[in-house]
Amino acid sequence: MVGGGRDAFIGGVHRMAMRLDGKIDLVAGAFSSNPEKSKLSGEDLLIDPNRVYPDYQTMVEREQKLPLGERIDFVSIVTPNRTHVPVAKAFLEGGFNVVCDKPLAFNLQEALDLQRVVEKTGKVFALTHNYTGYPMVKEARELVRKGELGNLLKVVVEYPQGWLINPIDEEGQKQAAWRTNPEQAGASSCVGDIGTHAENLARYITGLEIDQICADFTSFVKGRVLEDDANMLIRFKGGAKGVLYASQISVGEENNLAIRVYGTKGSLEWHQEDPNDLIVKYADAPRRTYRRGNAYLSETAKRFTRIPFGHPEAFLEAFANIYLEAARAIEAEINGQPIPSDCDFPTVKDGVEGMLFIATAVRSAKGGAVWTSMANYQK
Amino acid sequence: MVGGGRDAFIGGVHRMAMRLDGKIDLVAGAFSSNPEKSKLSGEDLLIDPNRVYPDYQTMVEREQKLPLGERIDFVSIVTPNRTHVPVAKAFLEGGFNVVCDKPLAFNLQEALDLQRVVEKTGKVFALTHNYTGYPMVKEARELVRKGELGNLLKVVVEYPQGWLINPIDEEGQKQAAWRTNPEQAGASSCVGDIGTHAENLARYITGLEIDQICADFTSFVKGRVLEDDANMLIRFKGGAKGVLYASQISVGEENNLAIRVYGTKGSLEWHQEDPNDLIVKYADAPRRTYRRGNAYLSETAKRFTRIPFGHPEAFLEAFANIYLEAARAIEAEINGQPIPSDCDFPTVKDGVEGMLFIATAVRSAKGGAVWTSMANYQK
Amino acid sequence: MVGGGRDAFIGGVHRMAMRLDGKIDLVAGAFSSNPEKSKLSGEDLLIDPNRVYPDYQTMVEREQKLPLGERIDFVSIVTPNRTHVPVAKAFLEGGFNVVCDKPLAFNLQEALDLQRVVEKTGKVFALTHNYTGYPMVKEARELVRKGELGNLLKVVVEYPQGWLINPIDEEGQKQAAWRTNPEQAGASSCVGDIGTHAENLARYITGLEIDQICADFTSFVKGRVLEDDANMLIRFKGGAKGVLYASQISVGEENNLAIRVYGTKGSLEWHQEDPNDLIVKYADAPRRTYRRGNAYLSETAKRFTRIPFGHPEAFLEAFANIYLEAARAIEAEINGQPIPSDCDFPTVKDGVEGMLFIATAVRSAKGGAVWTSMANYQK
Amino acid sequence: MVGGGRDAFIGGVHRMAMRLDGKIDLVAGAFSSNPEKSKLSGEDLLIDPNRVYPDYQTMVEREQKLPLGERIDFVSIVTPNRTHVPVAKAFLEGGFNVVCDKPLAFNLQEALDLQRVVEKTGKVFALTHNYTGYPMVKEARELVRKGELGNLLKVVVEYPQGWLINPIDEEGQKQAAWRTNPEQAGASSCVGDIGTHAENLARYITGLEIDQICADFTSFVKGRVLEDDANMLIRFKGGAKGVLYASQISVGEENNLAIRVYGTKGSLEWHQEDPNDLIVKYADAPRRTYRRGNAYLSETAKRFTRIPFGHPEAFLEAFANIYLEAARAIEAEINGQPIPSDCDFPTVKDGVEGMLFIATAVRSAKGGAVWTSMANYQK
Repeated sequence: MVGGGRDAFIGGVHRMAMRLDGKIDLVAGAFSSNPEKSKLSGEDLLIDPNRVYPDYQTMVEREQKLPLGERIDFVSIVTPNRTHVPVAKAFLEGGFNVVCDKPLAFNLQEALDLQRVVEKTGKVFALTHNYTGYPMVKEARELVRKGELGNLLKVVVEYPQGWLINPIDEEGQKQAAWRTNPEQAGASSCVGDIGTHAENLARYITGLEIDQICADFTSFVKGRVLEDDANMLIRFKGGAKGVLYASQISVGEENNLAIRVYGTKGSLEWHQEDPNDLIVKYADAPRRTYRRGNAYLSETAKRFTRIPFGHPEAFLEAFANIYLEAARAIEAEINGQPIPSDCDFPTVKDGVEGMLFIATAVRSAKGGAVWTSMANYQK
Repeated sequence: MVGGGRDAFIGGVHRMAMRLDGKIDLVAGAFSSNPEKSKLSGEDLLIDPNRVYPDYQTMVEREQKLPLGERIDFVSIVTPNRTHVPVAKAFLEGGFNVVCDKPLAFNLQEALDLQRVVEKTGKVFALTHNYTGYPMVKEARELVRKGELGNLLKVVVEYPQGWLINPIDEEGQKQAAWRTNPEQAGASSCVGDIGTHAENLARYITGLEIDQICADFTSFVKGRVLEDDANMLIRFKGGAKGVLYASQISVGEENNLAIRVYGTKGSLEWHQEDPNDLIVKYADAPRRTYRRGNAYLSETAKRFTRIPFGHPEAFLEAFANIYLEAARAIEAEINGQPIPSDCDFPTVKDGVEGMLFIATAVRSAKGGAVWTSMANYQK
Repeated sequence: MVGGGRDAFIGGVHRMAMRLDGKIDLVAGAFSSNPEKSKLSGEDLLIDPNRVYPDYQTMVEREQKLPLGERIDFVSIVTPNRTHVPVAKAFLEGGFNVVCDKPLAFNLQEALDLQRVVEKTGKVFALTHNYTGYPMVKEARELVRKGELGNLLKVVVEYPQGWLINPIDEEGQKQAAWRTNPEQAGASSCVGDIGTHAENLARYITGLEIDQICADFTSFVKGRVLEDDANMLIRFKGGAKGVLYASQISVGEENNLAIRVYGTKGSLEWHQEDPNDLIVKYADAPRRTYRRGNAYLSETAKRFTRIPFGHPEAFLEAFANIYLEAARAIEAEINGQPIPSDCDFPTVKDGVEGMLFIATAVRSAKGGAVWTSMANYQK
Repeated sequence: MVGGGRDAFIGGVHRMAMRLDGKIDLVAGAFSSNPEKSKLSGEDLLIDPNRVYPDYQTMVEREQKLPLGERIDFVSIVTPNRTHVPVAKAFLEGGFNVVCDKPLAFNLQEALDLQRVVEKTGKVFALTHNYTGYPMVKEARELVRKGELGNLLKVVVEYPQGWLINPIDEEGQKQAAWRTNPEQAGASSCVGDIGTHAENLARYITGLEIDQICADFTSFVKGRVLEDDANMLIRFKGGAKGVLYASQISVGEENNLAIRVYGTKGSLEWHQEDPNDLIVKYADAPRRTYRRGNAYLSETAKRFTRIPFGHPEAFLEAFANIYLEAARAIEAEINGQPIPSDCDFPTVKDGVEGMLFIATAVRSAKGGAVWTSMANYQK
């Protein structure tokens, strides 16, 4: 692991997700850009001190020297956005597989560079767009694929949070401070942090590609440079329409990511805060609630379920599903086998798409919320 | 009543709403533009045949000749949009108070004309934007007024329906046919029919005025000239932002009108299909669910409640609340007294605002979903 | 109408329910046992003073003398429990049809007497067990009848309220005072007032007949003679089991009547406070939510619906459904025609069953919550 | 670990719960009563083959011989009910701490024996009544303790499942077969398996002690000897009343454990399938929804939360909370320190209470559902 030392938040989540299924052991790390903090964090985590490194460069170098079978199988990168790409490149080029937190990069250019490195090295690269790890999200995708909804017409996806309604970034709250600082977060705060999750979820379930975006950004809290609220209209290729919004100032909302997809034959609805249910509606039939863990679900949804129906699974289990699938691919890679074709985790391609989405939204917003084509930025 | 004969839909709703509280009797009508149908409808409704008229002009003329105390106290207009204004003008100028279905007019110009007539005659004019009759909508407004939410930052209001996913208008379904026909519905179908309800609800609760609209219209069903889906970004005067969408092709949705209002201190959420609950959320306190009929509610919410908590009230009761308040004003007008200042019903001003909203949205959509100012149209 | 004067509660509900569909006019009444109050109440209701009577005996006598076609078609009895039977008998024997509030009688003996009078006179007698007027309750019964649930195994029905947690009966609140006074309410408070609704609802939907009851009554509030909480185990004829409870001291509950019915193939769930939805669950298929107003519902459910899906109907509409069906039967009776076989309203038989249920539960409770057979009381 | 080999279900759940927080390593086991299966299961789990034992007796013996610091710190017992006590006694008497699945024992006598062994050895004994590990269950207990509900009057607790509606036990489904077999499950199936969870949950939250039970058991599925459905009335010491039911034949229910607690000042409601919310209701104030992860919760609820609000936690996290607390106690025991007084996990005392509850319910049911005192069995 790189990052995730004392005071960090997402590192702990990654570690729980890794541990859950007993297939991944944390054995080495550079847990902080501060060598002393890295050392102490390693002690907290009961890691062999010889494998707690002062920085990621040293980690690459020293792990490479370990015999095959003793060195790490992959690295998990949980640093702030700014350093995802340099760290990932160092490990990929050092011959290691990578699991990386999102968003992929600091900007689109970096993302495209990284994509080239992934392609060149042939290593596994997994991006933890964790919401697609929920079994009922996978069921939603299966229903769309099977044509249960008919042709898709409209998508409404929203991710309101309220935690940044007060200027806690100004007051030094660490999670808030880096997310709202353009030097660390990049050109966008709200869209980069959570808007991309909404975009990724919509793309995962529907397979639709965005053609154009009209994005209205606002910085509601005084002194904030980056947007803390973003509302967008979307036009998908092929004619479907969309509404996407993300917010950090919607007081009282927690992580209320939700999606509704409307087709010619039916529609579906899923809420991240109530993740074990998937509601499907029809023009002239009773609504159906699909529930995690039941035998009637698709094989895909069942494959990502650990415990029986009625005993809810939640966020960590979904996160762990990303690791499980990445681990399957990594195991194959290490054994010199082809990656199983049904491996289901977000890749560098998803990361590039996400960065392109951010860049397009930012450009639209800067122009005064004008329609902006995704294509303008490509290549 | 004018309109509301056999085969009509909304006339029956108005009649139930009128009857509920025992303060309004239906005693006369021109129930159809077809005199024979008007006559038969009058028989169905057990109206004195002498007061069933072949057309609205005759109705005005003949009712005027009846002695005070015997003539109608007001007329209820439930015809298609196209004829609201001429009928309303005839009655207003004939000395009668008016309750009229929404939208107010066929276009903005007509609406402004009517507003002048209302002002000139001094008669009561009530518009049945019925959703504002729900007690918990009134409670929502009171909470906003009392500052419970702080300064308002964002409004999300949506009205998805799915009933027009199939071309039932082409197949002759009467309700569908006139709503999608520009000659009868005007320049907009979906926004005119239900988008205005969303706009009116948002304005009623928040008091915010729209500054600019960016509206993306789509006609998803082949052969349809007017939009059956509309997604909008909103900028309110004073800096608040909004998302508003309405749809007639969101399969499986019924009348899923819902609103969320976010302020600096708290937010609220209300769903028309679950109208007895109002949810209020805070940054750092448990969510509260306010429920209709309780003693802790505002006097306003309590005034519009008929039965105790836990025995739900619904759509017809809300509709009846519009009539109750209009009737209070009408009673005052007839008795030569001032209209009570707490009378709470939508007026011609709300209707003009609604028409302005429609016109602005249509203009934005026709320009390719560009930001369009409400002011452009005013006066 | 007999009863329902100033200060009364349920009379107003009956009047709204009567008025809603425009088929019933209130034209006469003895609105209070206090003649002066009856007179004033009649004025409030704009009733012809000649038909506002000082007591119910006078009302029977004088209405009988009016010519056919001018006299009342039926009487609506909304007095406290104690007087239901004498009033009803007077009207039945006077040649009038009757609609009566529940519970039917002060005790089982009275109920059986009244049943004989109804049978002898051949008049229509309707009891306002209003919850069976909800369209989705009717749909539930249809699903059971069609075998959608298989053989019924278990019923859980509950009616918790909290309004009597404080001794408002001692403090003179009128509704509370008579309901908890054995001289006016009979041998039971909670079970007589709301437990019977639970029993009636279960019987209506399932058709199951109770064989034995084990009832544990409690008077939680100091000074109260009758029970304000009752928990029961039920054994139905044929082997199904049940849990039934009613409470007036379950703080924070409003009118949370709810029922779950379990069969060998499926189960259903309905909540009075959310009456437009009916949930059906299966062993191995997604749950279904049936919603009022849809074309896929049974003809019966659709017959009792006034407005389209998504515009909720509620308590008053359900109450009005009882009146609508009683009115159909009364119209037939007056016209000398047979009562239509599909008339669907609670009759004197339901009332007798309810009184038998109350008597059996009281006997069980008095014995210390011992198993007591319904049959012990019959005849 | 003892038990939990290939084909077992609950063993896997325990392992995920143990792993989640990175404080517990599975290092040894006797995974099956079949030595070969134990060996293969150990391989699956990547356990050092030297510490995979053919039976639990060997495991005790051999682990005892390992130096302190190398031997296991505690054993986790996940065998069928029949063998909980002999295995637990062997480890306790061998000097090991124990975590054991519920119910504690095969019968009450065994449970009391085990309690004596626990007391004598002074070792830590934790019972995995996992539902009390949910943070919002802990919040519920805190609210009761702080007097937020006033004096408690009534408890309704239910645990309906539907998975045994078909005779899958007859057809050899392993989980079903042993749970319904009196030789393996003991005197009760449904109550022993899930009724005890309901009882434990109620006791944990309320602190109320059961005085008397009236239990009606049914075996609905042909050929089943033990009950698959149980409905009970409860009388608590001090006068509160209760309804408790459990069912394995309630088709379409999954693990719908739910509790409502009513006091003089307020009431609370919690549903295991929606575990992040706790609803509190008042006589005259809006309902409150307490949500996991918020700063306004009690320190206790916050202590058992891993990730922020709005990212749901669920069953495995609650299960892991039991292990976390047991581990704290075990760590203290091993270090010769007193068990921290705030350690919050179910103990052998809870297990004895549970067995007493089962025995009392069985006795009541065998007597024909007669009121039976818990005291009859004590000592």
